[in-house]
Amino acid sequence: MLFILCIVSLLLSPAFLSPVQNDPLFKHIDDHSHEYIQRLKEWVAIESDSSDPSKRDQVEHMMQVTKDYILKIGGKVEMVELGDQEYSPGVKIPLPSVILAEFGNDKTKPTVCFYGHMDVQPAKKDDGWETDPYVLTEKDSKLFGRGTSDDKGQVLALLHAVESVMKFDLPVNVKLFIEGMEEVGSNGLEKIVEEKKDTFFSNVDYIVVTDTPWLSTKPGITYGARGNCYFFIEVEGARRDLHSGGFGGTVYEAMSDLVYLLGVLADVNGKILIPGIYDDVLPVTEQEKELYKDLIFDLKDMQRDSGVSKFLHSTKGDLLMHRWRFPSVSIHGIEGAFSGSGTKTVIPAKVIGKFSIRQVPKMKPSVVEKQVSNYLESKFAERKSPNKMKVTMVIGAQPWLANMSDPQYLAARNAVRRVFNVEADMIRAGGTIPIAKNFEDVLGKSVMLLGIGGPDDAPHGQNEKISMYNYIEGTKLYASFLQELASI
Amino acid sequence: MLFILCIVSLLLSPAFLSPVQNDPLFKHIDDHSHEYIQRLKEWVAIESDSSDPSKRDQVEHMMQVTKDYILKIGGKVEMVELGDQEYSPGVKIPLPSVILAEFGNDKTKPTVCFYGHMDVQPAKKDDGWETDPYVLTEKDSKLFGRGTSDDKGQVLALLHAVESVMKFDLPVNVKLFIEGMEEVGSNGLEKIVEEKKDTFFSNVDYIVVTDTPWLSTKPGITYGARGNCYFFIEVEGARRDLHSGGFGGTVYEAMSDLVYLLGVLADVNGKILIPGIYDDVLPVTEQEKELYKDLIFDLKDMQRDSGVSKFLHSTKGDLLMHRWRFPSVSIHGIEGAFSGSGTKTVIPAKVIGKFSIRQVPKMKPSVVEKQVSNYLESKFAERKSPNKMKVTMVIGAQPWLANMSDPQYLAARNAVRRVFNVEADMIRAGGTIPIAKNFEDVLGKSVMLLGIGGPDDAPHGQNEKISMYNYIEGTKLYASFLQELASI
Repeated sequence: MLFILCIVSLLLSPAFLSPVQNDPLFKHIDDHSHEYIQRLKEWVAIESDSSDPSKRDQVEHMMQVTKDYILKIGGKVEMVELGDQEYSPGVKIPLPSVILAEFGNDKTKPTVCFYGHMDVQPAKKDDGWETDPYVLTEKDSKLFGRGTSDDKGQVLALLHAVESVMKFDLPVNVKLFIEGMEEVGSNGLEKIVEEKKDTFFSNVDYIVVTDTPWLSTKPGITYGARGNCYFFIEVEGARRDLHSGGFGGTVYEAMSDLVYLLGVLADVNGKILIPGIYDDVLPVTEQEKELYKDLIFDLKDMQRDSGVSKFLHSTKGDLLMHRWRFPSVSIHGIEGAFSGSGTKTVIPAKVIGKFSIRQVPKMKPSVVEKQVSNYLESKFAERKSPNKMKVTMVIGAQPWLANMSDPQYLAARNAVRRVFNVEADMIRAGGTIPIAKNFEDVLGKSVMLLGIGGPDDAPHGQNEKISMYNYIEGTKLYASFLQELASI
Repeated sequence: MLFILCIVSLLLSPAFLSPVQNDPLFKHIDDHSHEYIQRLKEWVAIESDSSDPSKRDQVEHMMQVTKDYILKIGGKVEMVELGDQEYSPGVKIPLPSVILAEFGNDKTKPTVCFYGHMDVQPAKKDDGWETDPYVLTEKDSKLFGRGTSDDKGQVLALLHAVESVMKFDLPVNVKLFIEGMEEVGSNGLEKIVEEKKDTFFSNVDYIVVTDTPWLSTKPGITYGARGNCYFFIEVEGARRDLHSGGFGGTVYEAMSDLVYLLGVLADVNGKILIPGIYDDVLPVTEQEKELYKDLIFDLKDMQRDSGVSKFLHSTKGDLLMHRWRFPSVSIHGIEGAFSGSGTKTVIPAKVIGKFSIRQVPKMKPSVVEKQVSNYLESKFAERKSPNKMKVTMVIGAQPWLANMSDPQYLAARNAVRRVFNVEADMIRAGGTIPIAKNFEDVLGKSVMLLGIGGPDDAPHGQNEKISMYNYIEGTKLYASFLQELASI
């Protein structure tokens, strides 16, 4: 009885409802799924935590294992050495190699380059993991382990896809650009992209980043990301911290000025009060609105995940637009004030308030910087405090927005239809994706984010996982994409 | 020539302009000043830093040295053991003994009990000291070293005064209550005061605290202190910290609510905006205003010391009244937000704003608590944020105000006139002096703060010092006080 139920539930699972089960490419992938899971298990076991200098050899080992596998399935590999990283003053540790690989070099075919990474976030059983993070554990058709979703599982799905398509015919040239320092800021990567612009990257037509999640159980293609203008407001009231007993009531307190300035950035509903800040935001088009209609997204899931009692917006479309395509301001904290537990009767002398504006196309960081500075300076002048105030923009990361009619987007949407029999979710990231903007700026190529992670994979958290469905059907998605790209 | 100049400057120094140089008591003190300095040198050399558990034996050693000296000059001593302190969970270290001592027990005489402490603040040469903090160093008629002013120098001046007066006749009974944990919160002291209420303290008429500075080069008698109502405002917006990329623009941020609430506490000029907060503040009397007229106090000195460019008040009287006898509000910091250097794109889930109100007679902490809570709750309700907000008063320390016509105040003012030929500065403390309020509440005795520290002694800072003038003339002040007290 139990057996029959299992069979029925397997038949009803989305993978088995797909209309293309007789596709020999997909059959090949299904037939090898156990091998794919076994390989992910081996790769997850390598503790390639790039944040931990004592595990740097494991990251390099992971790069070598990846290289060996690419060679085994017929790719050509160049390992680029990046030299040393100054981990702390006077302490140098080697940076892991970067993999540049290629499958095929036929000038008549289009060339697609995939980006991924083999390093992982830190993970310890003690952090609250239910299983050993470095022992892949299958439970309820999910594969738990550090790196399963971010990004070993996604890179492996791609490699298995390439291998599978090659069993038939690889209709495009495939290049791989795989690093081992993504989780700590991709040290040295920009430099390589610059250096290899006219060699490795010269014949690349499309760039695909594999390191992204879907919005729901439906595949999502990411075509945009917000930027980040990060500001410091420094207010200085005294040369040294003062005691509230000896000075309270006699001085203009820096903290008082700072909370005033942080308080005039936005109203309670998140509307930014800086004049002109919305001027350059692209208007929402009817066509864009359409994209939001079919997205599977439940505010209640987001609520459960975050513990937020009420959002600023009550409909799916409004909420996602404000996450993805409207600017927002967030106050992150204050440096220089008392931040410990308990009590301290200090009047902080110099405090630095930190906030950032997630800006969107076509907002320019240089314009935002000016708008913010002018506004805060005029607000501070109105206040007539004798303290010193300084506004600095310390990060000015640009937003990114791709052209969805580029061929690789069409190919990806076709691939989603073919594997899943649905229209792909066209989605954006609320945060910044520096690598996408960087590829676009330096190489002038079309960039797309086509990942296979689930929305609840917890890539940086405890109990990271990828579902078997995403892992195996994601392999089919990458395989189909390679074929579809050739026929656009 | 140089020699003559030195003689002239010595003759012009305040000590030598005093009209009482022929007083045999003062002559005795002057004659022994080298010995007094030598003893201070020996006591400063003992690193009785109560904050450092590895130096706890030095604190106990200091208590024993003090006991031995009291015995030597004819006092009776009881050492009270306080048992262990739980320094950190599971780690116990012994608390230093407390000295209860007495000189004389004549029921016909008044009894005065002095409080002081023998522990010191931490000090290391590396902190920026120009000399070894534990080697008393004389320079420009100042004695540099940790504890010279706070409080070894003041206690020694008192002991030398008692010894000197005894050479003639001790007209009052003197008791001493000396502890070794003042700098870290006077562990166990309240309990002893309670326990010894009906024994050691039963015949005490007056309590004098030796641990205070003057406002200027003129002796000051402290008759009041402000209280402290310390508040936490906790705002909770989510269950976990959120990323500003994924959530910025979709949630009501806790930090945004918190800076709003901290921003409505006071206006830019320090005026507290909480309704009713000034209702119970005692009105300034004409007699009180008189007290401020002769105070030697230069705003420019305070400015130099603090690096503050402009104060909230421009006259000496206004400024000191706002430091001492009007309430003030200070914002100390925020717990739970990003407080490090650099950048972090976090939306903090739960933040705790910390501020305190220095309240003054006759403001009651329980009333202040209600006024603050009601105000912040109504302001938060107006804002219509769905986040959770909670106001808690975590400290409710009362202000203290003595009756300046109590006999010990008259005796102290007489003593100042006798030694310095000036009227004493009648001053207050802007901070709280828990020990004063505690003595008054538990014992119901009149309390006075008669210290001999200078206003620029840097008792908790680098290069702590006491001037030779304050140390030796301060000894005369204590000696005179003992004699004057008998004749009131």
